[in-house]
Amino acid sequence: MKLCRYAPDRLGLIRGMTGNEGVHDVSAIAERLPKSGWPYPYGDQLIANLGALRADIEKLADKATPRPLAEVKLLSPVANPGKVVVAGTNYSDHIEEAARDQTLSHGRNVNRSLEDKGVFLKATSSIVGPSQGVAQRFPDRRNDHEVELCAVIGKAGTRIPQDRALEHVAGYMVGLDMTVRGSEHPSLRKSIDSYTVFGPCMATADAVGDPQSLNLKLWLNGEQKQSSNTRYMISTVARLIEYASQFYTLHPGDVLMTGTPAGVAPVKAGDMIEAEIERIGRMRVPVRLG
Amino acid sequence: MKLCRYAPDRLGLIRGMTGNEGVHDVSAIAERLPKSGWPYPYGDQLIANLGALRADIEKLADKATPRPLAEVKLLSPVANPGKVVVAGTNYSDHIEEAARDQTLSHGRNVNRSLEDKGVFLKATSSIVGPSQGVAQRFPDRRNDHEVELCAVIGKAGTRIPQDRALEHVAGYMVGLDMTVRGSEHPSLRKSIDSYTVFGPCMATADAVGDPQSLNLKLWLNGEQKQSSNTRYMISTVARLIEYASQFYTLHPGDVLMTGTPAGVAPVKAGDMIEAEIERIGRMRVPVRLG
Repeated sequence: MKLCRYAPDRLGLIRGMTGNEGVHDVSAIAERLPKSGWPYPYGDQLIANLGALRADIEKLADKATPRPLAEVKLLSPVANPGKVVVAGTNYSDHIEEAARDQTLSHGRNVNRSLEDKGVFLKATSSIVGPSQGVAQRFPDRRNDHEVELCAVIGKAGTRIPQDRALEHVAGYMVGLDMTVRGSEHPSLRKSIDSYTVFGPCMATADAVGDPQSLNLKLWLNGEQKQSSNTRYMISTVARLIEYASQFYTLHPGDVLMTGTPAGVAPVKAGDMIEAEIERIGRMRVPVRLG
Repeated sequence: MKLCRYAPDRLGLIRGMTGNEGVHDVSAIAERLPKSGWPYPYGDQLIANLGALRADIEKLADKATPRPLAEVKLLSPVANPGKVVVAGTNYSDHIEEAARDQTLSHGRNVNRSLEDKGVFLKATSSIVGPSQGVAQRFPDRRNDHEVELCAVIGKAGTRIPQDRALEHVAGYMVGLDMTVRGSEHPSLRKSIDSYTVFGPCMATADAVGDPQSLNLKLWLNGEQKQSSNTRYMISTVARLIEYASQFYTLHPGDVLMTGTPAGVAPVKAGDMIEAEIERIGRMRVPVRLG
């Protein structure tokens, strides 16, 4: 199942062959989720309740007349994420390019283990969908694209063992971890409004299968810049979930960004980024001045 | 006005002289806030609407029979924070103690300007109120208390100039930025469940006045460990808001933690932390094994 959100505030199911996908409106399922006054519950209630709602979402999609995917304005598939957890440098070839290029690493030692450097956070206020695009804030500094596989937590857990970790994943998205290079904490440089792009959909875990065998690619203005496979991650999705959950509870709707492979490059206003991960989908993200 | 939240899910106004405060139940005001289905709006809707509701909150408090403050189980005054922004090292005396003590700084250069190091994030899933206490996760590592003045954003803004920054503050809280020492990103080490304590209330900006003239103190098991004044901050609340908002929008309910003065010290299960900031209040926070 491939769930997407699109303007204005609709929920859809993507069906059909690549290049000919249709979006089936299943927004009515939101009526099955509890209404709440202040304070609102933590995390994403659709994702927390997805298991119970899946069959009815499929039925709604069966009855809907599809619209071409290319015609809808895609929003972030996760509407109410609690936190965005990021594994900084998780592909050897990206570590090598960062070690070579001081405009990427700014004097930092990029060759540190997960256990030494840990993971960090991006602000949820930085999240947008593909149609909203990236609004570049510091055009005088280097702003890079980074394509990443993103796991969406479906079941709350803490101190999750690696061999049970994937049971906590509801699905996967394509993510852009947009980054201003510099000396500041990455949780600041990567949290600029619109610097976290999720799309085109959340493909449920059963539809994706093994998260460590997915081709991921990125094109800048039609030129391929990044091309790798998730099998080259240093720490797997399951290991990252085990590691992060030693520190904090992962809640439904939390997102884990799993690092980018080599090929990151600067972007500027007017650019068009296209990012694709196998079995999830492809998204187009325009860049403008913010 | 001093707003507090207490179990189970009540909203209160604290009135009365220090040591003899009463909590007036004003929970009914929540009915004036919009109910929402999924997806929920971003940030804290009570704080976003506080200006319009203040007079009616006072009227509700006038009619309520107060309960002694010591008898209620205090929760975080902010129920739906979008992000928690932290200024890492913002008092000279704490920078000096961290530079002297490698168990605090772990080889990092702690003598960096705000513009060089930036600010970072704590996970909103780590937030608790005083009554919920701190559940220590890594008892074999050094876990420290850090008392901090916390500003709660009341009005959304981005690229906010310093001379208008305080107009965006709804109020102030006492904060504990609990910290596991180590080499990992601070946004991980400080984001353990329960490692962000907010309380006892949010004192509105008009009740606090100048945020740069407040005594702040912390006691561990009755022994005073930290004692300073917010006038010794390197970057003021207004400057931190200006700086952070160059990167991202600050939303109602976002919290800015402004750094801790010298005197941080390790805590262990069974300890009792008391933290106080002038014109806001005092809170008691027990430590247990998590």
